[in-house]
Amino acid sequence: MSERPILHEYAASANCYKIRLTAALLDQPLDRREYDIMKGETRTPAFLEQVNANGRIPVLQIGDRFLPESNAACFWLAEGTRLVPDDRFDRADMLRWMFFEQYNHEPNVATVRFWMRWVGEENFTDLQRALVPVKQEAGKAALALMDEHLALHQWFAGQSLSIADIALYAYTHVAEDSGLFSLADYPAVQAWIAKVESTPGFAPFET
Amino acid sequence: MSERPILHEYAASANCYKIRLTAALLDQPLDRREYDIMKGETRTPAFLEQVNANGRIPVLQIGDRFLPESNAACFWLAEGTRLVPDDRFDRADMLRWMFFEQYNHEPNVATVRFWMRWVGEENFTDLQRALVPVKQEAGKAALALMDEHLALHQWFAGQSLSIADIALYAYTHVAEDSGLFSLADYPAVQAWIAKVESTPGFAPFET
Repeated sequence: MSERPILHEYAASANCYKIRLTAALLDQPLDRREYDIMKGETRTPAFLEQVNANGRIPVLQIGDRFLPESNAACFWLAEGTRLVPDDRFDRADMLRWMFFEQYNHEPNVATVRFWMRWVGEENFTDLQRALVPVKQEAGKAALALMDEHLALHQWFAGQSLSIADIALYAYTHVAEDSGLFSLADYPAVQAWIAKVESTPGFAPFET
Repeated sequence: MSERPILHEYAASANCYKIRLTAALLDQPLDRREYDIMKGETRTPAFLEQVNANGRIPVLQIGDRFLPESNAACFWLAEGTRLVPDDRFDRADMLRWMFFEQYNHEPNVATVRFWMRWVGEENFTDLQRALVPVKQEAGKAALALMDEHLALHQWFAGQSLSIADIALYAYTHVAEDSGLFSLADYPAVQAWIAKVESTPGFAPFET
């Protein structure tokens, strides 16, 4: 395929950054198209019809096909490379951490970051106000589980950095932005963040 | 591997059923160990230490290794079989629907089913009461997105049934249990449910 994949994104979203980081580590050039989610640019009829009926970014476009879901896009880029383990169990275990990321981590750690930084406490609905401590507790549990794993293992799956590390790194390294988490409570996570960031080809989160 | 995989489960959970259905379609025998989540049997020190530090079922045990996350366990069982598409894009697209299932579908459709049927409205916290209409709306959006896709495609990814169909079938076919969704609103979903159920080797959800 000579055509470059096109990343439809909102650059400040760490879900989009996952894909940029995967591509950077693989030396895979991407074209990028920016949408302002705060202005509803992913809910327009054109976006819903052509890019993603789910009205969300990121979407990775490969030729004339569109692939939503950040972790699926990372998988498309990385399958068959060093960023996906060769071993069958390790490969499934990598996906295990990526499903954990979407179920236990992102809806808590990333959501409260978005609410605190983009929405603003003064604009919260009653429901958001009630959910913040719930999400804070669930986010702490997710970070604690990661810390427990990383106290015993170098990486999330297999013997080297995989897209499970990329998926979890994305919102973990900015978890403190919400003011609700302190990474100092998770020393193994902190050490792993430093290791991810010293990986050759690493690209920082520039929004 | 001569040893059978062991499914650590709560049989009434459709997340556990996903794995049983995948194994049935592949003629892969599984040993099963039942835990009563209503009695906290997945939060005991022994379970947390040996089976899953995240305190959740299902977990698929392969030899002495433990694989949490239902969709990751389905992937381990199905990789390299007809239940995973051969095409690179289709394979990532299968995972796209499985991440959608865990992010947009299960936390809404499955959670309100559990709350309405197992917890009981009379026992709801104020937060649960406030969340029910939010989850109902989000669940309807997930079912509508599935319906839109299935109006144009036979299956979720590729040209035949994959583990994306299994993952989405699990809680969709019992979505009405909560009393909050009507599958008659989603005719393409209904037709697809019938197709899944007529697949050779299909095993029904017996709890």
